Amino acid sequence: MTIAGNIETILVKSSWIRKMFEEGGRLKAQHGPGNVYDFSLGNPNLPPPDRFKDALQETVADCGSGDHGYMPNVGYPRVRRSIAGHLSTEQQISISADEVIMTCGAAGGLNVVLKTILDPGDEILTPIPCFVEYGFYAANHGGILKTVPANSDFTLDLDAIEKAITPKTKGMIINSPNNPTGQVYSEESLKKLGALLAEKGRQTGRTIYLISDEPYRKIVFDGKSVPSVLNAYPESMVVTSYSKDLSIPGERLGYIAVNPEAAFREQLLAGMALCNRILGFVNAPALMQRVVARLQGESVDIGAYARKRDLLCDDLADCGYKFIKPAGAFYLFPETPIDDDVKFVQALQEEMILAVPGSGFKCPGHFRIAFCVDDATITGSIPGFRRVMEKFIKKETK
Amino acid sequence: MTIAGNIETILVKSSWIRKMFEEGGRLKAQHGPGNVYDFSLGNPNLPPPDRFKDALQETVADCGSGDHGYMPNVGYPRVRRSIAGHLSTEQQISISADEVIMTCGAAGGLNVVLKTILDPGDEILTPIPCFVEYGFYAANHGGILKTVPANSDFTLDLDAIEKAITPKTKGMIINSPNNPTGQVYSEESLKKLGALLAEKGRQTGRTIYLISDEPYRKIVFDGKSVPSVLNAYPESMVVTSYSKDLSIPGERLGYIAVNPEAAFREQLLAGMALCNRILGFVNAPALMQRVVARLQGESVDIGAYARKRDLLCDDLADCGYKFIKPAGAFYLFPETPIDDDVKFVQALQEEMILAVPGSGFKCPGHFRIAFCVDDATITGSIPGFRRVMEKFIKKETK
Repeated sequence: MTIAGNIETILVKSSWIRKMFEEGGRLKAQHGPGNVYDFSLGNPNLPPPDRFKDALQETVADCGSGDHGYMPNVGYPRVRRSIAGHLSTEQQISISADEVIMTCGAAGGLNVVLKTILDPGDEILTPIPCFVEYGFYAANHGGILKTVPANSDFTLDLDAIEKAITPKTKGMIINSPNNPTGQVYSEESLKKLGALLAEKGRQTGRTIYLISDEPYRKIVFDGKSVPSVLNAYPESMVVTSYSKDLSIPGERLGYIAVNPEAAFREQLLAGMALCNRILGFVNAPALMQRVVARLQGESVDIGAYARKRDLLCDDLADCGYKFIKPAGAFYLFPETPIDDDVKFVQALQEEMILAVPGSGFKCPGHFRIAFCVDDATITGSIPGFRRVMEKFIKKETK
Repeated sequence: MTIAGNIETILVKSSWIRKMFEEGGRLKAQHGPGNVYDFSLGNPNLPPPDRFKDALQETVADCGSGDHGYMPNVGYPRVRRSIAGHLSTEQQISISADEVIMTCGAAGGLNVVLKTILDPGDEILTPIPCFVEYGFYAANHGGILKTVPANSDFTLDLDAIEKAITPKTKGMIINSPNNPTGQVYSEESLKKLGALLAEKGRQTGRTIYLISDEPYRKIVFDGKSVPSVLNAYPESMVVTSYSKDLSIPGERLGYIAVNPEAAFREQLLAGMALCNRILGFVNAPALMQRVVARLQGESVDIGAYARKRDLLCDDLADCGYKFIKPAGAFYLFPETPIDDDVKFVQALQEEMILAVPGSGFKCPGHFRIAFCVDDATITGSIPGFRRVMEKFIKKETK
């Protein structure tokens, strides 16, 4: 063995996904990127809000020579105060700067949370379909990701969750608005989930944490809003980032907010500060912390994502695709007309369309379209989507 | 247990260090920061080079709206090309962009390297005194940090290293210029170390990697330069950051350079790209990647650190302190006049002087002074240093 055995295994296992992405790259190189309809990545195509560049330039202009140095591992106090203030207003809670920890994006934040709470063999629940990285994040810290089915409309299946809880359950990760389904969990379902976790926690004698991964909170459509987990269950925490709502995923800026009512608030906060340090993040990038502090409440043009959703949904429905219309985020998760979602996605590739098979989210029989793309990519792809649908429908009816 | 058992243990164990820092904070609050001589943190006090702010402003001005988005997990190709070019010239090697992986600082890079190579129970060697975080980094990924003694002048003790190697040894971390001693390892000792690791690797049938943590490479004095590990041993890699040579530790920007001659170069690079992603770093911060690409070869005013070193060394020698004069970095690691280094450092605190006991580097009987501080902090502290020395000498001769 030349490198770690588990890393070699992951590399081999994920090789078909890599092959698919490489094939996408090959198509772009061969036919020109403009002729390939790439829906594979959740890389926001909308520009950051206008205020972003101003805030960045103002921050750079204001920078003293010490402003790129170390700060506390949890981040600048005034940045955390500004976020706590915004959160308190937005979610009608009373959260203080002490309960906010700046992180290298939500991915960094989730690793910090899981390292802080997981003992070897502990289980973390999550509904499927789920973001495939959760499994890696739990395994990084000795835990096991245990997936539970969702309802057919991708809402929370509380019975399935109840059955999945064991004495090893340490927490549950939810993601609302959801990647890849766009589902937003209702306030009622969050409260019921909170009550269930509290009751089960009493039975098993363990605190079961509810970890809400919510980088898409601001990206919701049709006048919806995203209910607060912090209001639904005291043993909860929010992990989020500015990647999607400010369109700056490459800058790696996010935060953890711990429920002020959490029974072990002190230990959680001290543990997270330590883990942010020893995992090698040390602190969230300094300059960008100060930039986002100036942009609380700002977001990209959500209406543009809503229009892209409508454009895509209308056209795909017309082609015969079946899906739940997303309430938020920028993903659509239609059923594949054949069971084999990998084969289906390969057929899309022949039409120069790049998408991700549902298997990549532990939910075969579906595929994910990231519609954070130019309108031209959406409209241009429709004939291809139509031909692939017709091809498989014909085959099925032969 | 409310949080992970190992995290609770670390929090309890490190509580005396935290208490010491809290006491430092209390002193500053009580007497004003200007009246406390804080040598406890390696937070560079020199401003970034003049070119840094220009490069930052130029980069911000040049930013298109997509320039804050995701890029490959290993970083921007042109940034990596620029670094590979600089490295190739600086170290007379032929390294390509493919062998450079952008990371969230050296701390992030070390975690990526260790996650990539460590199987459960694997051992990583490092000479003492050592940066205390190495132990956490190895443990994060199921490994064990095994410390080996150094020579009395803090150079590498090859006999001790040879004795410490077992069939579980997967690598060795060295840090030159060294934190906390300032020692720079000679070309000859690196070549001997390389030959030893190669020979032992053949005996145990495992590749033993040499991981060179070298954020202080550019900070060397008296015309010295730092020999290249990449030239000394094929199974080597460099992990570094711009934190110290550009004085931007809060921005979290560094890289890994893998030896082009490494037998398992492909697996290492693929594994590191994966680990950078799944550990939650995802990629090094986008904007700062583009800034440092414009600043290859730049550094802070090294002469200023040399003058601070001389000022401190002359005065402390005059007080009776014994130490090896550092050849690089910005730390001095004198012997404590009494065996109990924690007690000694507490006595310094009574004189408003903050330093770190050698125990924090697994090397009791010493203490670390980080001299990346204003000259006034150095000169102002000397009477206190003198009184503490006299106090303990008197006691000893009673």
